[in-house]
Amino acid sequence: MKKYISPGLLAFFFLLSAIGHYARFPATLEFIVSAVAVIFVAGFLGKATESVAHYAGQRLGGFLNATFGNAAELIIGVLLIREGLFDMVKASITGSIIGNLLLVLGLSLFAGGLKHKVQRYNVTLAGMNGSLMIVAIIALFVPAIFLNTHVLHEEDRNSVSLVVAGILIAAYLLWLVFSMITHKKILADVADNAQEELPHEHPPAWSKQRSILYLVLATVMVAFVSEWLVHTLDTFTARFGLSEIFVGAFVVAIVGNAAEHSAAIMLAIKNKIGAAVEIAVGSSLQIALFVAPVMIFISHLIGRPMDIVFTVVELAAIGVSVFIAKSITQDGQTNWYEGLLLIAVYCILGYSFYLV
Amino acid sequence: MKKYISPGLLAFFFLLSAIGHYARFPATLEFIVSAVAVIFVAGFLGKATESVAHYAGQRLGGFLNATFGNAAELIIGVLLIREGLFDMVKASITGSIIGNLLLVLGLSLFAGGLKHKVQRYNVTLAGMNGSLMIVAIIALFVPAIFLNTHVLHEEDRNSVSLVVAGILIAAYLLWLVFSMITHKKILADVADNAQEELPHEHPPAWSKQRSILYLVLATVMVAFVSEWLVHTLDTFTARFGLSEIFVGAFVVAIVGNAAEHSAAIMLAIKNKIGAAVEIAVGSSLQIALFVAPVMIFISHLIGRPMDIVFTVVELAAIGVSVFIAKSITQDGQTNWYEGLLLIAVYCILGYSFYLV
Amino acid sequence: MKKYISPGLLAFFFLLSAIGHYARFPATLEFIVSAVAVIFVAGFLGKATESVAHYAGQRLGGFLNATFGNAAELIIGVLLIREGLFDMVKASITGSIIGNLLLVLGLSLFAGGLKHKVQRYNVTLAGMNGSLMIVAIIALFVPAIFLNTHVLHEEDRNSVSLVVAGILIAAYLLWLVFSMITHKKILADVADNAQEELPHEHPPAWSKQRSILYLVLATVMVAFVSEWLVHTLDTFTARFGLSEIFVGAFVVAIVGNAAEHSAAIMLAIKNKIGAAVEIAVGSSLQIALFVAPVMIFISHLIGRPMDIVFTVVELAAIGVSVFIAKSITQDGQTNWYEGLLLIAVYCILGYSFYLV
Repeated sequence: MKKYISPGLLAFFFLLSAIGHYARFPATLEFIVSAVAVIFVAGFLGKATESVAHYAGQRLGGFLNATFGNAAELIIGVLLIREGLFDMVKASITGSIIGNLLLVLGLSLFAGGLKHKVQRYNVTLAGMNGSLMIVAIIALFVPAIFLNTHVLHEEDRNSVSLVVAGILIAAYLLWLVFSMITHKKILADVADNAQEELPHEHPPAWSKQRSILYLVLATVMVAFVSEWLVHTLDTFTARFGLSEIFVGAFVVAIVGNAAEHSAAIMLAIKNKIGAAVEIAVGSSLQIALFVAPVMIFISHLIGRPMDIVFTVVELAAIGVSVFIAKSITQDGQTNWYEGLLLIAVYCILGYSFYLV
Repeated sequence: MKKYISPGLLAFFFLLSAIGHYARFPATLEFIVSAVAVIFVAGFLGKATESVAHYAGQRLGGFLNATFGNAAELIIGVLLIREGLFDMVKASITGSIIGNLLLVLGLSLFAGGLKHKVQRYNVTLAGMNGSLMIVAIIALFVPAIFLNTHVLHEEDRNSVSLVVAGILIAAYLLWLVFSMITHKKILADVADNAQEELPHEHPPAWSKQRSILYLVLATVMVAFVSEWLVHTLDTFTARFGLSEIFVGAFVVAIVGNAAEHSAAIMLAIKNKIGAAVEIAVGSSLQIALFVAPVMIFISHLIGRPMDIVFTVVELAAIGVSVFIAKSITQDGQTNWYEGLLLIAVYCILGYSFYLV
Repeated sequence: MKKYISPGLLAFFFLLSAIGHYARFPATLEFIVSAVAVIFVAGFLGKATESVAHYAGQRLGGFLNATFGNAAELIIGVLLIREGLFDMVKASITGSIIGNLLLVLGLSLFAGGLKHKVQRYNVTLAGMNGSLMIVAIIALFVPAIFLNTHVLHEEDRNSVSLVVAGILIAAYLLWLVFSMITHKKILADVADNAQEELPHEHPPAWSKQRSILYLVLATVMVAFVSEWLVHTLDTFTARFGLSEIFVGAFVVAIVGNAAEHSAAIMLAIKNKIGAAVEIAVGSSLQIALFVAPVMIFISHLIGRPMDIVFTVVELAAIGVSVFIAKSITQDGQTNWYEGLLLIAVYCILGYSFYLV
């Protein structure tokens, strides 16, 4: 795919999409233009991520990609909180988590598995990722259980939300210390160790500095184009009678994660499954352990306090996604069928949300 | 046990049981005759499975056994659907899943573990089995959660059921492609690799063709005798005041799985634990991913649409069975105590269903 | 720490605490005296456990420690049952299980992990521990589900409780047969195998007989001092408006497990992580599979029948504790961050119980 990213076409569709958004093109036209633009900027991001991963190692590259991808979601979330649209924020958090764990990871394992019989990545990292996912669902599940079985004051609801959010942020920051500093080597990619033995790999097209610059630039472009595309969906939502929760949890999540999709799948096909998993699993962990808790703190700072209590179906969706993803990733080896199982669960959840 | 299967006695008790059924013997006499016949035909099936497993490899032999065993259950299920007895169908699906995962697997691990200190089977297969089990409970759990928390139209209930059933059937068929074609070697039995090194193993008594013929014949006989035996239970149910759900989920499941029981235990004692696990786990997966979804499609075809929504206690029973079975099988090695733990959970569930 | 345990100071604070309790010192003074005494007797117990572990192997030493520690809890529990304080008994069972699985294990992994990059223990034992934990929560979960969804007679409630309790006790006793007799070697500590290669280890200060004697003595002292300390908490409970369930599940559990804390942490720092896990996980298994079921039988014997049905929040707390502990321990290797994750979950639960 990356061969076809002409800088000229990229710039053209990005600008056209911008004009379409601000000049208020008819919805259908704006949708088409934005969708084409998303494909180009996502391809650009995928190439930049791959180049950075070449210099930085698979995991750090994947982490950077996940972080830039989620920065956009954080900004959109805060905008929604200011409007008091808490349900849509939580639906989109839910959608991002399950979209990454099921769709991005599933497509990556499937595409990578079609080309490579078995793909392996660090089994210790797989175990740690699984434990972090469990902590994330516990943090969402426990307040919901307590608040649904006991009547609490408004201020206690908020204090539980803030305490749990604080614990999650602390856990995430210490995870960075653990995985990037104290135990970096133990979590290193299987492929990284063998990297010097791969003489057939092409040198990246860009220098290290340029790769990082392009990664930032591509992420910003993706964030903008995604939002313009999402904006056009309102019309479709109304026209096709879709519920806000379905749009938030599936349509927004699919489009908003287009960058992760293309980057992760591209890396998986190149047998860099460690980086693909880091993008998919790492991104959903980042949302659950960092982006969502930060939103709760910001919501209090701007005087529109949002609690951490998700609905039963949202919790069920996140819970089953974590269980199947943990079960599939925990042995550190993947194949095409495991990718299909993740996609199957995504379809079951998607159809259920669609009907609600 | 197999030494005592005289063809003459086998035929005699099978025919006596048939006469007892169609000539309407007194219930107690019919029960005794059928129970003795079950022992003989189950022994015959066990021997045939073992012989086929010798020629086909442990896993394929186990798969054939599970398939023939479940054909009978599918037929019985469709008969019940025609009568509109949906609750009994679901109870018997529940009972088959937990009976295989807990009782058949538990007795196999226990019996095999008493003779062999540690038994090993392919750890990759164990992981894949675990993931498939998780997908199966997600597929039952998600519609139940959504339909219990939201009011849906009758047609939406049916459409969720059909979509989920379709996804499960597709997942099962692709699992066959994966496990029998694309990744057959990776999932091969540990013991298969070492098979040539076992000169002390007796050659099977039957040729390959004869073994397959006998496997089919024995399965059909088991199906008939099981149904005749189940039929006699109605009287006992009424006499002892047992609930239909208990009879469906436990008595029918124990008797109906007599074939799997005897075959799996016999294989486990001979240290062919891979085939025993394939019969037990594979059979429950086949029911959850194929037999049950096919029943839903058939129910729509014959104009008695059945949905996929199980009761809370059925879901709980299936859920805990999957969790303990997954926990016990996932390391690819088993011992007698792990078998006991499965039986302990079966007893807890059985007593709870008995009281309801 | 052990260097500072002067026998004189130990005896002095123990006696002072006894006098404070029976002579009814002012609550604050009694609290301070008891707290200091707990530190001394816990240190004494830690040293005795370590010495016994030197002679008996890590696992047996850990088992003895857990057993003596839980004997005290059994006695306190029976006293509470006689008063009919079933809610407090169940809260304290809950607190002991999650306190051991999250706080004791978490602090051990954290402290041990700060000193040793990666600590390993027997991965087969880890798997068995995980399966036993799953059986324990199934045994608590299944009766609760059935009794909450169906109306049962009082006698059926009791019979479910007794049957489940009997199954758990049988499972626990057979676990001892399995782990101490038939499969002892397979579950041996990783470090035990390498023990002879550690010439730098100091010989223990005490003989084998003396170590065992001191272990018993220290356990008895811990039991007494813990109870005196707990007793002073009533005043604080009232003064600070804490709920009984919070005090039972957290304050009592922290103080009552002071012995396990100090022993397990000390062993973890010395890289005897197998013994530390045995104390923490083994102790919570002992409570769930043996102490709690025995309490139910005793409650029937003394004519104050207690059922096995825990509240929703208690079940949720035990369930999430088991899931995260199983996820973290199942690969047989631990690090400081995994300890922190356990502590994070403990804090989330603690704060939630605090607000209720």
